Amino acid sequence: MLHDDSQEALKARGNELQQRYEAASRAGLSLDMTRGKPSPEQLDLADALLALPGAGQFCDQENTDCRNYGGIDGLAAMKKLFADILGCQQTDVIVGGNSSLTMMYDTVARAMLFGVPGGDKPWVQQGTIRFLCPAPGYDRHFEIAGHLGFELVSVEMTEDGPDMDHVEALAADPSVKGIWCVPRYSNPTGITYSESVAQRLATMEAAADFRIFWDNAYAEHHFGEERQPVPDILTACRDAGNPDRVLIFTSTSKMTMAGAGVSAMAASPANINDARRHLSVQTIGPDKLNQLRHLTFFGDIDGLRAHMARVGELLKPKFSLVQEILERDLGGKDIATWSNPSGGYFVNVTGPDDCARPVIEMAAQAGVKLTPAGAPFAYGLDPQNRIIRLAPSFPPLEDIRQAMEIFTLCLELVAIRQRLAKP
Amino acid sequence: MLHDDSQEALKARGNELQQRYEAASRAGLSLDMTRGKPSPEQLDLADALLALPGAGQFCDQENTDCRNYGGIDGLAAMKKLFADILGCQQTDVIVGGNSSLTMMYDTVARAMLFGVPGGDKPWVQQGTIRFLCPAPGYDRHFEIAGHLGFELVSVEMTEDGPDMDHVEALAADPSVKGIWCVPRYSNPTGITYSESVAQRLATMEAAADFRIFWDNAYAEHHFGEERQPVPDILTACRDAGNPDRVLIFTSTSKMTMAGAGVSAMAASPANINDARRHLSVQTIGPDKLNQLRHLTFFGDIDGLRAHMARVGELLKPKFSLVQEILERDLGGKDIATWSNPSGGYFVNVTGPDDCARPVIEMAAQAGVKLTPAGAPFAYGLDPQNRIIRLAPSFPPLEDIRQAMEIFTLCLELVAIRQRLAKP
Repeated sequence: MLHDDSQEALKARGNELQQRYEAASRAGLSLDMTRGKPSPEQLDLADALLALPGAGQFCDQENTDCRNYGGIDGLAAMKKLFADILGCQQTDVIVGGNSSLTMMYDTVARAMLFGVPGGDKPWVQQGTIRFLCPAPGYDRHFEIAGHLGFELVSVEMTEDGPDMDHVEALAADPSVKGIWCVPRYSNPTGITYSESVAQRLATMEAAADFRIFWDNAYAEHHFGEERQPVPDILTACRDAGNPDRVLIFTSTSKMTMAGAGVSAMAASPANINDARRHLSVQTIGPDKLNQLRHLTFFGDIDGLRAHMARVGELLKPKFSLVQEILERDLGGKDIATWSNPSGGYFVNVTGPDDCARPVIEMAAQAGVKLTPAGAPFAYGLDPQNRIIRLAPSFPPLEDIRQAMEIFTLCLELVAIRQRLAKP
Repeated sequence: MLHDDSQEALKARGNELQQRYEAASRAGLSLDMTRGKPSPEQLDLADALLALPGAGQFCDQENTDCRNYGGIDGLAAMKKLFADILGCQQTDVIVGGNSSLTMMYDTVARAMLFGVPGGDKPWVQQGTIRFLCPAPGYDRHFEIAGHLGFELVSVEMTEDGPDMDHVEALAADPSVKGIWCVPRYSNPTGITYSESVAQRLATMEAAADFRIFWDNAYAEHHFGEERQPVPDILTACRDAGNPDRVLIFTSTSKMTMAGAGVSAMAASPANINDARRHLSVQTIGPDKLNQLRHLTFFGDIDGLRAHMARVGELLKPKFSLVQEILERDLGGKDIATWSNPSGGYFVNVTGPDDCARPVIEMAAQAGVKLTPAGAPFAYGLDPQNRIIRLAPSFPPLEDIRQAMEIFTLCLELVAIRQRLAKP
């Protein structure tokens, strides 16, 4: 335990780490632990897609010519597959293009220009708009809200979702129009929302045009044994008399080809019809051939889950290695805590206050790129400057080992320096 | 000539046509001349795409892994190909998803929410916004502007573009923010904009945030011998000191797979950088595999043009047949005029005033679906109710023959009835 060590012992350990750090810096490494993206090996698992749907194959089960124009909301079989992923009905689903982020952005932009079902006026006519940003969370969610000029309101993340006492208090304000949620393997803490959190989100007092942006990005992305169920927020909202409150998003991006997947949203009939009405002006319809390609590749939800099990087998050793090195180098030292997720793409490390920025800078100087400090927070500001997001999905195992050893070294060294500076 | 015929001759001809119409109606036809979409045979020409990029093929010339995330504005080679289509530089281009309509909608929606480079304020803060709609024109252009609440201002189309005296007078009003243009094989009249029209668009007085939406949808879509050049509007605007005035759009939709093509926009550096800045929030980037698929299929601009020559060979007999029947049945009768385009997707027929709606209704009752009357006009209102758009690309030749014979029959019959009713 760092706290129990004498000044001398700390200085000695600090010198030892400093020497190791200098040696590591001279090695000229170039490692990247920032990117929540699939590795080439993981993409290889979906390489059959590169020659699909295949010569002469262009009709779906309903005999739609997927090459031509027509159809604003996706093929029936693709809706069914997404409904199976999300645990909802096929009729709840609209299929989009290759980016669920775009579906989210477009939904918010539409709310700005036109308002939402049940709402009074377009958001653009309602003065300041506020969005709740459970943090640490996903930077690109917050970026959408910030880009559109909303005020970002931070809410603390807990082990089973956002701090609901705080959320309930904030949502009563009618200028609060939305909350960003990643309900399973939340980015970056890896937690899964509890039933109780979902119930409170569904039933709490909120503006009629308040929306839960429920980004189930990691719906099928397990690599551990644990399979905590995701709450059925659509039914919870319907049962609470707030059927239009939630908008669910997902995609196959982290299942097949990250940049060439298929996205979807699911919601109440009013929300779905509203989106469809706008989409019929905005687009000639989503790429049906890419849907057919994915349907041919997956077959059905069982095929999709078998594929995701293979993906999980590739991710599991990477996440295990991260845990192993964190435990070996930092375990029992009272320096940091970290998440140990059973799915998703990230490991979240919480160090001493004020450590994140110096650790990330030190690591960068030694050739290890980490996610910028503050990125998982509204306005990019971690109030305690102590959260570091690790993304081990992309690099090969040996890179992860080297990067993690430098990371733990930097974290311990910064912690010791802090301790020495504040006796 | 209808005008020279006696009442008796007109009545006799009317009775003959009425009998033929009744016989045709009993045949129980179901023909569709409404859809400006490729025929299955045309799509077949691109069927190699169904198995591309092919097993193990996922890197472009710059060794980008097109399967993964990354890249907001398209592959370099895809930009080059679009630059060759549009006659601009690769750096002028942003590649989008499968729908150029979406790029247009998104550009207008962004102008609403954020304004445009050189503009004062977001359009949403500027009161009534007006868009110029050269008519007859493309209904889905007008629909975007109408959906966003703009006032649609009709401008008459001439043989070389919109009536520029009228456009110049209107554009001086700072609430006029845009004009929709299809510069080559304009939908539906088939005309190509002249140099003079482009010059006047580039140089006329207009608001700093006025934009020309230059939808070059039929840039390579020739089937005739004539190849009238499209004016270089980007250079014209730059030379006029209005570099940011024009936004150019195109896509491969009517080249390869209509619903699964690749779209692009081209514009000044300020406009391109502005779009890129917003896109980096809105999307994870366009589908790079579909770009690679198209690059592999086309090779380069020469390969693309060779492909479009094959497409033209399929379209040419359809358009020739339409001309043949129009000339045979209506030629010399002083009933209608029609376009004879050398590219694009439509033939535009101008009949006597007040004829469009009754002709389209009569044809529908005989089993021939035509584009709704007024569709090519702002608010769906053809002030003279005399324009009928024919779309011969999709149906097979025999269907076109039958549909055209009923169409000309209905048009002549309606003209005779009108003549008899107004002696």
